[in-house]
Amino acid sequence: MADEVALLSFWPSMFGNRVKIALALKGIEYEFKEENLRDKNPLLLEMNPINKKIPVLVHNGKPICESLLIIEYIDEVWNQKSPLLPTDPYQKSQAKFWADYIDKKLPATGKEIWSTNGEEQENAKKNFIEILKVLEGELGEKPYFGGDQFGFVDLALIPFYSWFYGYETFGNFSIEEECPKIVAWANKCMEIGSIAQSLPDPKKVYEFVSVIKGWLGIK
Amino acid sequence: MADEVALLSFWPSMFGNRVKIALALKGIEYEFKEENLRDKNPLLLEMNPINKKIPVLVHNGKPICESLLIIEYIDEVWNQKSPLLPTDPYQKSQAKFWADYIDKKLPATGKEIWSTNGEEQENAKKNFIEILKVLEGELGEKPYFGGDQFGFVDLALIPFYSWFYGYETFGNFSIEEECPKIVAWANKCMEIGSIAQSLPDPKKVYEFVSVIKGWLGIK
Repeated sequence: MADEVALLSFWPSMFGNRVKIALALKGIEYEFKEENLRDKNPLLLEMNPINKKIPVLVHNGKPICESLLIIEYIDEVWNQKSPLLPTDPYQKSQAKFWADYIDKKLPATGKEIWSTNGEEQENAKKNFIEILKVLEGELGEKPYFGGDQFGFVDLALIPFYSWFYGYETFGNFSIEEECPKIVAWANKCMEIGSIAQSLPDPKKVYEFVSVIKGWLGIK
Repeated sequence: MADEVALLSFWPSMFGNRVKIALALKGIEYEFKEENLRDKNPLLLEMNPINKKIPVLVHNGKPICESLLIIEYIDEVWNQKSPLLPTDPYQKSQAKFWADYIDKKLPATGKEIWSTNGEEQENAKKNFIEILKVLEGELGEKPYFGGDQFGFVDLALIPFYSWFYGYETFGNFSIEEECPKIVAWANKCMEIGSIAQSLPDPKKVYEFVSVIKGWLGIK
């Protein structure tokens, strides 16, 4: 039986776009099901009744939720091509640690940049830069977080790059000025076709954030 | 070379106690290093400079942080005895999903029970019970979350049981009345020697919470 793979996602989602990239790198054909977050699809509620959140990967009818768990699953099931996690248990734990660090820090701080003003926004920008600087420290002189190859941590982080333009525009600052190594790393990642083609246009993400701000009544 | 294993932890920590249980189940000898959370040890800051948090497992000089990542690491490195995660990728992703659910929901809601009063506390109790009811649904008629054997999700959840008495006393409610299946499951887990011997006395945890409330100036 051929594998039936579907991805329930929403085009600007960093989390959904991790999965898109993983599927593209592995060369897996799948159906993309765009979700409407304001009017959740019964399929999403059926497939992720606990968190009711995208992304959900549906593989032969069975749902897998939470983006990092999904990419780990993809890496394990389709293990012949483009390995994402190291096989060594220690290296693997380190990759997962950094992906977890990104998840615990970056989305909330990024959101604070576009959803606040004044001092609160200044603090958010400062925190955001600090997080990226910690990540620059971990990257060191390696081409990728994964070493010579694009890996799990790279995959966890790169979809945020589509949001950088929005963060910069709403926050009135330059990420490249503060963290040139992260931006150079991101540009290097974007040279990989499966990655560039999986990520949305940063200006469209910016427009989307403007719409969200309107919905939320944020000036 | 014999393995050198040390655990940096703090006796009431649910997260640290997950690791204690995993090490006990696997029969691994190790040095327990009790941390003083008010005056952090230089070793902790050296081993976990990013989060500066216990637990940290130090295996042959190399640190692994974050309790769920540590128990995954232990399960992978010491794989001959007491497997914790299923080998099937789908089952594995589900176990990790539930452990992640526990981490995202239970600690914060539990803390709200002992650190708030009045309406806020009533809400926290309601949320806490709801979370446990979702977990009861996942447990179903199985003896353990892991099926016939104590597994990863069981390990993620059981250390909270030492805190139940504290939650109940500060919240003035009975968890057993609301969620008898979870309490029956916990009692079954406590019949396993390595588990019962790894967990602190609930009354000592309650006293510890009283002290913390004092430090924080919470009535």
